[in-house]
Amino acid sequence: MAKKIRLGILGGGGDSLIGILHRVASQINDNYEIVGAVFNPNLEDSVAFAEEIDIPTNRIYKDFDTLVEEELKLPESERIQVCSVLTPNFLHFPMAKKLLENGFSAICEKPMTTTYEEAKILQATLEKAGTIFAVTHTYTGYPMVRQMREMIKQGALGKIQKVDVRYYQGWLNPVIHDKEKRSSTWRLDPEKAGISCCMGDIGVHAFNMIEYTTGMQVKSILADLNYLYEDNQMDIDGTVLVRFDGNAKGVLRSSQIATGEENGLAIAIYGDKGGFRWEQENPNYLYVMSDDKPLQVYKPGHAYNSKLSLNGTKLPPGHPEGIFDSMANIYLGVAKAIRGQEYNDGEFPTMMDGVRGLNFIESTVASHKDGNTWVVLD
Amino acid sequence: MAKKIRLGILGGGGDSLIGILHRVASQINDNYEIVGAVFNPNLEDSVAFAEEIDIPTNRIYKDFDTLVEEELKLPESERIQVCSVLTPNFLHFPMAKKLLENGFSAICEKPMTTTYEEAKILQATLEKAGTIFAVTHTYTGYPMVRQMREMIKQGALGKIQKVDVRYYQGWLNPVIHDKEKRSSTWRLDPEKAGISCCMGDIGVHAFNMIEYTTGMQVKSILADLNYLYEDNQMDIDGTVLVRFDGNAKGVLRSSQIATGEENGLAIAIYGDKGGFRWEQENPNYLYVMSDDKPLQVYKPGHAYNSKLSLNGTKLPPGHPEGIFDSMANIYLGVAKAIRGQEYNDGEFPTMMDGVRGLNFIESTVASHKDGNTWVVLD
Amino acid sequence: MAKKIRLGILGGGGDSLIGILHRVASQINDNYEIVGAVFNPNLEDSVAFAEEIDIPTNRIYKDFDTLVEEELKLPESERIQVCSVLTPNFLHFPMAKKLLENGFSAICEKPMTTTYEEAKILQATLEKAGTIFAVTHTYTGYPMVRQMREMIKQGALGKIQKVDVRYYQGWLNPVIHDKEKRSSTWRLDPEKAGISCCMGDIGVHAFNMIEYTTGMQVKSILADLNYLYEDNQMDIDGTVLVRFDGNAKGVLRSSQIATGEENGLAIAIYGDKGGFRWEQENPNYLYVMSDDKPLQVYKPGHAYNSKLSLNGTKLPPGHPEGIFDSMANIYLGVAKAIRGQEYNDGEFPTMMDGVRGLNFIESTVASHKDGNTWVVLD
Amino acid sequence: MAKKIRLGILGGGGDSLIGILHRVASQINDNYEIVGAVFNPNLEDSVAFAEEIDIPTNRIYKDFDTLVEEELKLPESERIQVCSVLTPNFLHFPMAKKLLENGFSAICEKPMTTTYEEAKILQATLEKAGTIFAVTHTYTGYPMVRQMREMIKQGALGKIQKVDVRYYQGWLNPVIHDKEKRSSTWRLDPEKAGISCCMGDIGVHAFNMIEYTTGMQVKSILADLNYLYEDNQMDIDGTVLVRFDGNAKGVLRSSQIATGEENGLAIAIYGDKGGFRWEQENPNYLYVMSDDKPLQVYKPGHAYNSKLSLNGTKLPPGHPEGIFDSMANIYLGVAKAIRGQEYNDGEFPTMMDGVRGLNFIESTVASHKDGNTWVVLD
Repeated sequence: MAKKIRLGILGGGGDSLIGILHRVASQINDNYEIVGAVFNPNLEDSVAFAEEIDIPTNRIYKDFDTLVEEELKLPESERIQVCSVLTPNFLHFPMAKKLLENGFSAICEKPMTTTYEEAKILQATLEKAGTIFAVTHTYTGYPMVRQMREMIKQGALGKIQKVDVRYYQGWLNPVIHDKEKRSSTWRLDPEKAGISCCMGDIGVHAFNMIEYTTGMQVKSILADLNYLYEDNQMDIDGTVLVRFDGNAKGVLRSSQIATGEENGLAIAIYGDKGGFRWEQENPNYLYVMSDDKPLQVYKPGHAYNSKLSLNGTKLPPGHPEGIFDSMANIYLGVAKAIRGQEYNDGEFPTMMDGVRGLNFIESTVASHKDGNTWVVLD
Repeated sequence: MAKKIRLGILGGGGDSLIGILHRVASQINDNYEIVGAVFNPNLEDSVAFAEEIDIPTNRIYKDFDTLVEEELKLPESERIQVCSVLTPNFLHFPMAKKLLENGFSAICEKPMTTTYEEAKILQATLEKAGTIFAVTHTYTGYPMVRQMREMIKQGALGKIQKVDVRYYQGWLNPVIHDKEKRSSTWRLDPEKAGISCCMGDIGVHAFNMIEYTTGMQVKSILADLNYLYEDNQMDIDGTVLVRFDGNAKGVLRSSQIATGEENGLAIAIYGDKGGFRWEQENPNYLYVMSDDKPLQVYKPGHAYNSKLSLNGTKLPPGHPEGIFDSMANIYLGVAKAIRGQEYNDGEFPTMMDGVRGLNFIESTVASHKDGNTWVVLD
Repeated sequence: MAKKIRLGILGGGGDSLIGILHRVASQINDNYEIVGAVFNPNLEDSVAFAEEIDIPTNRIYKDFDTLVEEELKLPESERIQVCSVLTPNFLHFPMAKKLLENGFSAICEKPMTTTYEEAKILQATLEKAGTIFAVTHTYTGYPMVRQMREMIKQGALGKIQKVDVRYYQGWLNPVIHDKEKRSSTWRLDPEKAGISCCMGDIGVHAFNMIEYTTGMQVKSILADLNYLYEDNQMDIDGTVLVRFDGNAKGVLRSSQIATGEENGLAIAIYGDKGGFRWEQENPNYLYVMSDDKPLQVYKPGHAYNSKLSLNGTKLPPGHPEGIFDSMANIYLGVAKAIRGQEYNDGEFPTMMDGVRGLNFIESTVASHKDGNTWVVLD
Repeated sequence: MAKKIRLGILGGGGDSLIGILHRVASQINDNYEIVGAVFNPNLEDSVAFAEEIDIPTNRIYKDFDTLVEEELKLPESERIQVCSVLTPNFLHFPMAKKLLENGFSAICEKPMTTTYEEAKILQATLEKAGTIFAVTHTYTGYPMVRQMREMIKQGALGKIQKVDVRYYQGWLNPVIHDKEKRSSTWRLDPEKAGISCCMGDIGVHAFNMIEYTTGMQVKSILADLNYLYEDNQMDIDGTVLVRFDGNAKGVLRSSQIATGEENGLAIAIYGDKGGFRWEQENPNYLYVMSDDKPLQVYKPGHAYNSKLSLNGTKLPPGHPEGIFDSMANIYLGVAKAIRGQEYNDGEFPTMMDGVRGLNFIESTVASHKDGNTWVVLD
């Protein structure tokens, strides 16, 4: 029947936080079986980790190239179908590219690539490959995020006139003020983390949230980033002015020095017929506003929700699901796509989301460096 | 290394809500492998379900007795170690008893049995068996519930003087006012659901939450139940006055006709040094009150939490985990126990919790039937 | 035109908290002028206080009897029309009675009297007098409390089946555990504070909130009070089971040892068509629940509110009004009544509310002393 | 003793919302007596209004000039000491100027003037006059706003690195999309409302909140305003990038087309030692964040608050006070200043706040018109 999809894992070994997130997400709806992996750069570590989580070790490979080579020798019915790419950022692009070129599907952590150029190459690669590709903007898997998307599509807010998104964290605060620490954190090292820290790591989630929920494309941006110290080479905070077609405007705020904030992604969207407010830390509450009716609070699992939203809920209302469930919803969507089943185009973030994200990241840095000028997105 | 524990599933097939909850919970920390099951009363359905979730069908048995018989034939190293009992309530007792008698461990849905008498028999059975037994008071798996328990144990609230717990749902409201519907709902049929609906189904969770968090035992209770209609044989709402040793008192409120409520379990605990407030629908916020300091809000994953609480969190603060994660924490605790590893006695609800629960349920009905008089718990 | 009503004040001098609440409330809608007073037992203090708040001192009297005597000598057009009775509890009855007997109206602090017997005498006195009498259950002045009353009257909740009210404070916690302190606090001295502390002081507000909002009368009660220490003579905590006609039931919880709680009055009401939740500490949010629609949040000042609610709001939505405004709404209702203008019977709590309150207080103590038995209210 | 201050009122007659706010605020702490007024442009209306609120009509004047002229004829001990200026915006400047020039104090509604030039002239006028001047940035009167100011002054947040303030309303949404309506609303007419609608009306409150709480001055701004329709001449929405000395940055967001929002002023402030969050619609909760301790929630009236905050609370914790009380706190501060008593410089917003506000408003419009460039504030 619904034979499990053969999943490979790249990275995510040991204490990796992202590892457990993807592993659990893949199991939640009984759709995937982990059959192969390169968990760590070192084969012994990889095998040890496989034993620790008690999966077969016969397809734990010494490196990514070997994985591809060996899997391709297997009959298609046994071969890994899709790989989760959880490696350091700079490896996303070469691994994803090679996977696609060799007929594998891929679920890729974000940022999808380290440059916009790479993103466009990867996009072209996928077009030729014809396999499935998802980039894990995890927060789009929440039922109430999906509900926003569907309600906006149905016209519930009318014409959008204002968007305000925020992503505030405070984790860099204890680091940034210590010269020693800030010079030794990999996230603040352009060699390792790319051209942007704050926008690349979390601002891009906020950007994706705008386009995912509204279905609109940002046309141009103007960014003011903050590096706080002269010797710090990477943005750790910033505000981005945003413009859409048709006089709609918005703002995107992102910070890693918002002391005491945890994982504060939030969005507010206003149209001529109504408004939305949603926060990632309380993901099961969607506030729906209008000019003259009482505030409404939508919650997951109720029949009044859209099908896309309801597909992302496993238990009746009042049983809170969280971020593992959100990621699981994305894996569920990918499973449908791999199996050739029907699915809603909001069930997982696509190559286009990844390409847009890199376009955004590079544009914010360019705008800032140019003295806070408007940059038109492609 | 950490070889996966061999898990059997009894019940939980098809659209069962509880099925997916246990299945996911068992997978979340990579500790269990489902090796055998009786998902449904009918073998074909069971096999079909096994295929649907793509697990091996060779140990899908036609009924529970066969499962026990066949598994006992297997060498111990292959045999099911623990079964999750997710069948209708009246089957919990005979199944759990037979499992324990045959050397299996068991994770049993609640209510553990249908009578207090059965509960005590099961307790005696476990004492002889020496295996592991857990009853799934799921909500005790939340990190902030565990934090309450540990902080109270450490004396953070001082001497407890007042406890107030609530469990309000509204799902019976659309049923209860229609004579046809209320006579055909199994939960309202004493033959199928035991002597109590509201107290048996959810009141007992509230009762357990009191004893789990405070570490105190309720000494006596006085209950006023509500049946709403003369022809309705089962309580669907009720309030229970509660007394502890040493002048501490409390109240337990439970309802299934609290129209519009979803799954409203909440607790407030007051001691001479401070107070707590916590709600299941927002499980990641623990409100800590005192006479003269600002209200504090504890959240999961922070280093200020107890070890027991931190063990129940997989990601950094701000990444909300939910009820699947809570149940997974219970499965994690059971895994430690089965493997003979060290664990905190709050990591899963035990036989004693089950016994206390049945004592409570029967006492509330007795108190009510006797004209709302005090009943002393054993 | 709307000549100001001539107001006298009894009590409320010096640092009295209640004094400023009534004084401000009387000024808020430009309806009252304070023309006479006995602020303190001592004339010099009274005059000094009048000077402090800069009102004329010529009608500051040495005691209550003199006030009545002297005011009666004045022509009716100059005479005090209504007195606010803010004196210690035991003086409410004699003062209110004499005021009514002499043709004055009265706004009386709660508890209206110290015994139910007195309450009934006062009721008879008012019937003869034909003047206006209000008892200040302040919380009924909040716009969203009024909205609950009107919506229930209009059938928004259908038939009420469950009521749950709470009034938790923690202020006694730092007092009660110290033998010295608890024996010297006037609230805990039956000579000074009457037969009940917790029920008399705050439980009665909760009781009134039930009857005010639902429009239903409580038929019988069963109370379990808590004194915590053997040498403490007054209840400081308690739970009251509540029954109405027609199988509706409820619970009233009240405590002054809920450590860290401030002024936690809250009510939840469930009918067969919907439910309400409201909290005094966030008075501008009314949560309206139903079986199948999104949760609604009503707020003051919106056109969707009832006229009674809107009359209690002075500014557009989003400008929070508070407890002074709530009390002012009660004073506004009394002003209408004194002027013979039309008003809604929910605009101020009446003698009947006071009588019911005393019936309730005495019944809770009786029930508790009788071993927690049911007591039928008159 | 504390003889009441003689207050004059300019504007605020009839259904004026601002009228009742100032009138009530002036009465709340027993410090002011309204002795004269020009409530309306028409004398009969003014007198009728005086009668309606029942104050003496002998000093109701036909116009502002007459008020000044006649009051100056009175002996100083009877003369109006301070006037509340509640007239349309364009009258604030000439009236305030003349008041100051003639030895009166003034409490002026915001915007203080219609141009920055006028603001500087008024500032010079005040310096000569030596009387008291306040501009009613009402929200600075809230106890928890004052608490932020004092805690920041004491170093609780360390060095400020990020400020984020929002003021979102939705009231213009039903107006703006209708060509007829938007062309006939006075707020959208530059002739009547000055050069800015959104920034001038509410953005300036947000700006003041930044400087009031942090004690820091904004150094430069870059604004992107939104007019939404080509024929609309006034900004109705906008985002302002903000820079301080020393690498601290921030963002100010303001909108009148945030559909469904009521009066959504909110601020978040982050320093290297901690962070704050506060919202006007729930003004009695101040969220205090840090890197590693539980979130704290400060509330009014507790002894842990600063003296400046406690001065703004009249009742014990848990008795919510609101916007009338906030404005009353400002009137209380002005009363102290007029009486020559000691006061904290945060007790009322001063001329400097007004001057800064106009500097800000003009700069935002200039920045926007110049293509969203940086403008340095004076």
